[in-house]
Amino acid sequence: MYTLPSASAERLRGWLETINTYNDTPEFGTTRVLFTPTEVAARAYVKREMEVVGLAVHEDAIGNIFGVLEGTEPALAPVWTGSHIDTVLNAGMFDGMAGVVAGMEAARLIRASGIAHRRSLCVIVFTSEEPTRFGLCCLGSRTMAGHMTEEDTKALRDQDGKTLHEVLRELGYHPAELQQIVRRKGDVYASVELHIEQSASLERSGKSVGIVRGICAPTCFNVTVTGEQSHAGGTSMADRMDAFTAASEISLLLEELGRTAHESEYTTATVGHVEVIPNASNAIPGKVKFSIDIRDCSLASKDSLIEKLKAGIRAIELKRGVRIELELQNHDTPIMCDSNIVSTIAQSCEALEIDPLPTISGAYHDSLFVGEFAPIGMIFVPSKNGISHSPEEWTEYSDIARGTDVLAQTLLTLANQ
Amino acid sequence: MYTLPSASAERLRGWLETINTYNDTPEFGTTRVLFTPTEVAARAYVKREMEVVGLAVHEDAIGNIFGVLEGTEPALAPVWTGSHIDTVLNAGMFDGMAGVVAGMEAARLIRASGIAHRRSLCVIVFTSEEPTRFGLCCLGSRTMAGHMTEEDTKALRDQDGKTLHEVLRELGYHPAELQQIVRRKGDVYASVELHIEQSASLERSGKSVGIVRGICAPTCFNVTVTGEQSHAGGTSMADRMDAFTAASEISLLLEELGRTAHESEYTTATVGHVEVIPNASNAIPGKVKFSIDIRDCSLASKDSLIEKLKAGIRAIELKRGVRIELELQNHDTPIMCDSNIVSTIAQSCEALEIDPLPTISGAYHDSLFVGEFAPIGMIFVPSKNGISHSPEEWTEYSDIARGTDVLAQTLLTLANQ
Repeated sequence: MYTLPSASAERLRGWLETINTYNDTPEFGTTRVLFTPTEVAARAYVKREMEVVGLAVHEDAIGNIFGVLEGTEPALAPVWTGSHIDTVLNAGMFDGMAGVVAGMEAARLIRASGIAHRRSLCVIVFTSEEPTRFGLCCLGSRTMAGHMTEEDTKALRDQDGKTLHEVLRELGYHPAELQQIVRRKGDVYASVELHIEQSASLERSGKSVGIVRGICAPTCFNVTVTGEQSHAGGTSMADRMDAFTAASEISLLLEELGRTAHESEYTTATVGHVEVIPNASNAIPGKVKFSIDIRDCSLASKDSLIEKLKAGIRAIELKRGVRIELELQNHDTPIMCDSNIVSTIAQSCEALEIDPLPTISGAYHDSLFVGEFAPIGMIFVPSKNGISHSPEEWTEYSDIARGTDVLAQTLLTLANQ
Repeated sequence: MYTLPSASAERLRGWLETINTYNDTPEFGTTRVLFTPTEVAARAYVKREMEVVGLAVHEDAIGNIFGVLEGTEPALAPVWTGSHIDTVLNAGMFDGMAGVVAGMEAARLIRASGIAHRRSLCVIVFTSEEPTRFGLCCLGSRTMAGHMTEEDTKALRDQDGKTLHEVLRELGYHPAELQQIVRRKGDVYASVELHIEQSASLERSGKSVGIVRGICAPTCFNVTVTGEQSHAGGTSMADRMDAFTAASEISLLLEELGRTAHESEYTTATVGHVEVIPNASNAIPGKVKFSIDIRDCSLASKDSLIEKLKAGIRAIELKRGVRIELELQNHDTPIMCDSNIVSTIAQSCEALEIDPLPTISGAYHDSLFVGEFAPIGMIFVPSKNGISHSPEEWTEYSDIARGTDVLAQTLLTLANQ
């Protein structure tokens, strides 16, 4: 292994706290949504800091930011690291951002060490890992994996009806050139993402670093229940077709299926977004729209759960006389991490006298899509109480620094393979 | 009985269609919320039309509109009729408005007949029967019943944080003088409100007029469920405290209690308003706020349901580890109609060769509060498919005209008692 300087918790903290000042909801958590003025300003800050660290910065057609530390043999396939800086609504300050600043710090440590590396290192900020604005996650890595065309960007609309295509053009990006950023196998030698764990297993085990063995993938539906809007007092219990109680029944069925999906090592099932129409205390809801998010590290287990869910929904539809429509948003395939990268991370931990926890990622990450064209690995750092996507999300800066030490060792090792 | 001209369905239609042009959501139903510019403009239209009909118009301290047709003995306690012109969100064009235009038409018919009446007749537009803006129903009639003071108007806030007190003052009303509009028993001889049925029993029985025997009264709670906001993928099913599935369970419990409340002739239980926080597809809801609306024509039955609901909610709280707070908004007492008025309506029907349906009002009305200081009665006209509080709300103009004929006979009879 290599002798590298130790990561600076203070530097990581400074970057994270400054990124966190780019925030549209300072009164309650952090909200930094793709391509808002706030997010664009945060991008500019990160690009400047990448340059300070000594990286050569460029952006691609969909706004993925690359900070490159050139290797001694720049023609070789590079080693990637990185994450994202966009957030969900009222989020925390670590999900995504921890991986970006860890990548920048790792590059800084490698550069400072003066140790040569054959392959170039790229620190990447992926465009819109969160689905906050356009309802679809991982726009940047999804495009590089070949799953998003210019046509798709014309179909994706935000709440104001604006398309991703329009937004990209307004900001000077090039939706017509998306095809040119698609990667093929072999283009990237290895990709390692550091991320907060977003669950409590590291904290419970008292460990500061997790080595991810596989990443669950989401399947998302938009559900619309149509009942009959009517008067809360005038319409008897027997005569009503209440869209909300039907939605409630679906949400409890989904929870039950998620809890009892024993075919898999890890399954989650969530209703996170709910819209009730007309949403008046004295009107029986005529329509309810809501999201369903199912994650699993086994595709077969996920498919089996979805089948049971659909059967249950048909039964609720029949029983209640409401109409229930399921619109599939995405159905992504779980992925296993690359064994060479997993063992390189393990060796880095050993060299640094860190006892890591092998784990599964319940959350998806850009690595899920990068994994379609490159060998991937992930390093987890602890989340206090397992909470994320919340203002209470917290990771100790010293833990991020430990994870960054592992990341730097791992990247340098891979870059010399 | 008296020989009166017949009500004009065309005139009623003209008034209803014109009132319906004052609408903030013409693309989906009718939305006319208290003291918005749209509602204020609709008020001005109704006041002008009352004057055209020959009524002397004035407003009181909280904006109740009175159109008075003076009797031959104006010192006697008057006879009232009327309803409201404010709506819920995305409502129909009859709930409330039918009773206002029926009152105006009845007054016109009585005036046109030249038949003397001892008592004055008042056609009233009650302020904000719907709770749309300030979360509390029947602001005008509630005040006249002595249940709302100036202090209360300072505590009621709309979604923008503006108090009812501020809004009243801005529009030139007099919240400091609310005490002066409180009525005592004896102040009003009788009050008769025509309203659409808001359920399907008239339609089912093929009858065009219902005589209301009693009015259910609502009890309303605002419920807040606090769980733990977290990541939809990162937080395992075992580790999560999902506020939305807890809310779903409460909504199904409430529905079940409403369906099986066999102690009463008529019970409803509804969750109509739901707010999920943060409301993102990939975040486990940390907080859900929702409304509970329970109606019953028996207070004992309602109290028993509420007791079972509270016990069930405590069980859900314990089982799920979430915190559930119930904030009581109002707990109103059901009321029976006055036997003299009920029999006068029945005699009017007989004279007009109309076969009426005795019924219960599941919805509350201003008459519920008026009934605290005056003998009340209500006349129902059919609702197509029983639907109301919906753009699909519909009543045939000919049915409103039949109801108006009954109303005019009844008012004239009462005004000469």
